[in-house]
Amino acid sequence: MKTFKVGEYLLLRLQQAGIRHLFGVPGDYNLQFLDSVIDHPEVTWVGCANELNAAYAADGYGRCNGAAALLTTFGVGELSAINGIAGSYAEYVPVIHIVGAPASEAQRQGDCVHHSLGDGDFRHFSRMAEEVSAASAVLTAENAVQEIDRVISEALHQHRPGYLLMAVDVEQAEVQLPQLSSPVSTSASAAEAFAGAAERLLASAQRVALLADFLASRWQLQAQLAALRQIRAIPAATLLMGKGVLDEQQPGFVGTYAAEGSTPQVQSAIEDTDVTICVGVRFTDTLTAGFTQHLPAARLIDLQPFHAVVAGETFAPLTMAQALSVLEPIFQRYGAQWALGHTPASTSQPVNDALITQHAFWQAMQQFLQPGDIILADQGTAAFGAVALRLPQDAQLLVQPLWGSIGYTLPAAFGAQTAQPDRRVILIIGDGSAQLTIQELGSMQRDGQQPIIFLLNNEGYTVERAIHGAHQRYNDIAQWNWTALPQALSLEGAAQSWRVSETVQLEGVMALLARNEHLSLVEVVLDKDDLPPLLRKVTASLHQRNGG
Amino acid sequence: MKTFKVGEYLLLRLQQAGIRHLFGVPGDYNLQFLDSVIDHPEVTWVGCANELNAAYAADGYGRCNGAAALLTTFGVGELSAINGIAGSYAEYVPVIHIVGAPASEAQRQGDCVHHSLGDGDFRHFSRMAEEVSAASAVLTAENAVQEIDRVISEALHQHRPGYLLMAVDVEQAEVQLPQLSSPVSTSASAAEAFAGAAERLLASAQRVALLADFLASRWQLQAQLAALRQIRAIPAATLLMGKGVLDEQQPGFVGTYAAEGSTPQVQSAIEDTDVTICVGVRFTDTLTAGFTQHLPAARLIDLQPFHAVVAGETFAPLTMAQALSVLEPIFQRYGAQWALGHTPASTSQPVNDALITQHAFWQAMQQFLQPGDIILADQGTAAFGAVALRLPQDAQLLVQPLWGSIGYTLPAAFGAQTAQPDRRVILIIGDGSAQLTIQELGSMQRDGQQPIIFLLNNEGYTVERAIHGAHQRYNDIAQWNWTALPQALSLEGAAQSWRVSETVQLEGVMALLARNEHLSLVEVVLDKDDLPPLLRKVTASLHQRNGG
Repeated sequence: MKTFKVGEYLLLRLQQAGIRHLFGVPGDYNLQFLDSVIDHPEVTWVGCANELNAAYAADGYGRCNGAAALLTTFGVGELSAINGIAGSYAEYVPVIHIVGAPASEAQRQGDCVHHSLGDGDFRHFSRMAEEVSAASAVLTAENAVQEIDRVISEALHQHRPGYLLMAVDVEQAEVQLPQLSSPVSTSASAAEAFAGAAERLLASAQRVALLADFLASRWQLQAQLAALRQIRAIPAATLLMGKGVLDEQQPGFVGTYAAEGSTPQVQSAIEDTDVTICVGVRFTDTLTAGFTQHLPAARLIDLQPFHAVVAGETFAPLTMAQALSVLEPIFQRYGAQWALGHTPASTSQPVNDALITQHAFWQAMQQFLQPGDIILADQGTAAFGAVALRLPQDAQLLVQPLWGSIGYTLPAAFGAQTAQPDRRVILIIGDGSAQLTIQELGSMQRDGQQPIIFLLNNEGYTVERAIHGAHQRYNDIAQWNWTALPQALSLEGAAQSWRVSETVQLEGVMALLARNEHLSLVEVVLDKDDLPPLLRKVTASLHQRNGG
Repeated sequence: MKTFKVGEYLLLRLQQAGIRHLFGVPGDYNLQFLDSVIDHPEVTWVGCANELNAAYAADGYGRCNGAAALLTTFGVGELSAINGIAGSYAEYVPVIHIVGAPASEAQRQGDCVHHSLGDGDFRHFSRMAEEVSAASAVLTAENAVQEIDRVISEALHQHRPGYLLMAVDVEQAEVQLPQLSSPVSTSASAAEAFAGAAERLLASAQRVALLADFLASRWQLQAQLAALRQIRAIPAATLLMGKGVLDEQQPGFVGTYAAEGSTPQVQSAIEDTDVTICVGVRFTDTLTAGFTQHLPAARLIDLQPFHAVVAGETFAPLTMAQALSVLEPIFQRYGAQWALGHTPASTSQPVNDALITQHAFWQAMQQFLQPGDIILADQGTAAFGAVALRLPQDAQLLVQPLWGSIGYTLPAAFGAQTAQPDRRVILIIGDGSAQLTIQELGSMQRDGQQPIIFLLNNEGYTVERAIHGAHQRYNDIAQWNWTALPQALSLEGAAQSWRVSETVQLEGVMALLARNEHLSLVEVVLDKDDLPPLLRKVTASLHQRNGG
């Protein structure tokens, strides 16, 4: 029987989970494991400038690849990354976080070693990790095989992070390859009961709508949803967080639902129904203008990752994929009686704004997008502006509106491009956000990536100004020379930069970028009080919820 | 009786603790508190580019000011900062971490609001904070006065971080000013018993040495230590972590003690004694070449923050300041019989290295230093090289060798300069480290600071190379255009940069920098395998402890 070092076994399991890249930062407690990574034929090391950025990059990779892995060192490294991991937890991205730790003997003795708190307790950080992990383990030579399997399986199952603390000596220990465990089974009876309940509700309905959200995207139900809509093109919408999970070019797509923040047409299409089918939906304050959705349980079919609810009755265990399979024959049987959805006519009109406004920017962006693009829009005017886009086919949008950690998308774009080297990556990010994580412009260039970055320069935290303190100094930021930055963060000298303040300039640069061969940064000068329409509604609601 | 909003009361208490600046990043859960900060006549807001940098800046400020405060927003902000807070915990810096949180009602209802994990549990992050805080509190309108006082008092007492979670509505609640509590009392009997035990040991001694470390610096015992050494100039040394707590120009100073990593003279002066008096010492792996100190308990007087140990017998409660007061008459009575310490002759010799070596760099740095300088040396070749410096009078050295979070010193230099605007700040940092936290070069320039930065470019993580994987790709980093960076991170255009690879160039730039009026960055090109002598010993020990 073949034996492995624990570290090698872990890499085998990552590879079997479809993970081909390991993001992170080296540290002396993980260097030996890194030797195994470098030697591994299938898993590639991707060093980042710091650990938070590495965690964001892994998250972006996970959203494009299904799962991701992150390597940090004990204490300093893992804690620097933990905000990124928390985001992956909140927004359901399976990132396996591997932490290299001091030797077991030093831990047992409680030595005052570097990267510890100096108090002899080596469990502080694993306790912290447990708060934001689907599963976690402190590996030993004895439990490593079992615990690696448990943590990775549970992380993939729950679509949330897993945490593995691996001491330098444990990584070197030899283990034997076990039998692979069988997949989790599901209950046939729950599916049957769900089918009956769903059919009772849908058989008499005339107005049926579909609302899909990010969990459907995480569980990769794009094709199943498209097939269902192929049977009957009922009105269909997503929330911002799940934008992209529905093909927006397919008939019936009505737009982005944001409760009272929606356009009247979208709100009516989703709320004025006999039955609304929700697939992987979570209602968040910022995406519902403060929980203003009107979707009574009595006419709701709600599919969640591990259960479904029909008119208030819960069916479990039942996956979303199973529930969608059950709905397919019901669509075929009753679909003809349901009203069709009407995609609103394109709002794209000639823009007359000489200086670039939010409106002009998003109109231009709509024209710029191509099928297959990966678009990342940072929390703030970028993400809320992206609501208005109608995505081309096979385009993917990455946003982080629940966790909402500004700066996330810049390293996430690095991760997304690593996962999908042949697709075009477009990053839209504000100046306040980009300052948090700017370093990864260097990593992108080191790896020869060619993302197109639209840096929305509105002189600070515009989204915060809209909520509170419009003219307060704390919403200003240090002024940077943005167009000089890509060149400063590389010795290649290949990056290109532009600064545009007029709409015609923006359109001119976009025309040039149709043939983009290097990292490109376009600094887009915007008024600091200009907001996309949805953001105006959302920030008014947040202002009120925070006490004015 | 005057009433305050909770936020105003908190600011009053910070001010009373000597904290004049609040570092952080705005977020919508802390914006209203920021209004109070902006209105406050004594506490100034200092915005940073991201929260980890803000935590590092607060730590640097705390080391120069005695205490510091940090403001972040719920979830995303506080977790981004938590590695910095953990460093403050490990290395005893009192940083009051204030976190703005969602409204109490939203928390009570378990709303799925932004910056939460979406599971209705709003205590995940306060539980994480408890692992790295001396005291923590979730403030309510009812407990705010009492809990603010308790957390700040305990943080100042233990010289470690305190955590305050303040919901947006709690910040606005009105409270009344209580009586100030009286200071903690200490025990007279412990001091008497300690005096007897110390005298019995010292009365018959002939070789007495003093070893001071960082805890003496945190408890600000510089003057008391100098007074003791004034009575009798016994051999005196510090560990790297406490370097600067002893006046290195005062007679008797022998150098930096690093157990078997010391020079033979220093090791002998501290270990070959009848009695060694340790003040605020903690032995850490990296500072003792892997715990190689030979200091038997039988001839040790060990002063710790809240107790003292004489030949294995513990006396408590007893502060270091009290214990030093007790030692003063004993020094006067017996000091004359103790051998004097001999400061080694300066090793400064003309350097013949044409290309800059570590040796040449530190020789030049020795010449460059002036009384009163604040020097920050990042973990890596910088901190370990700084061991060889003999600090001018009133110079202060900031290093972080226990927590060892690379990149720490760049924002810490920003914080130190904020605390001490009239002193010269010199930052020495490697290229790998500077990449983690480079953003704060922008904040420095925004605030008109003029630090002098020596960027040691040795193409990656030299300290990691020395431990393991000298020629592995994971110890390389993205190559940046360092001299272009200060200008890219500001619109001022005032910063100056140089790149030097020859010793005469370095000396020439240093001569120019004697009249420095802007932020200055000197990129110092060094061989990637060149190590200061102590680091060579330390990394060999770490290599072995990590299993080779």
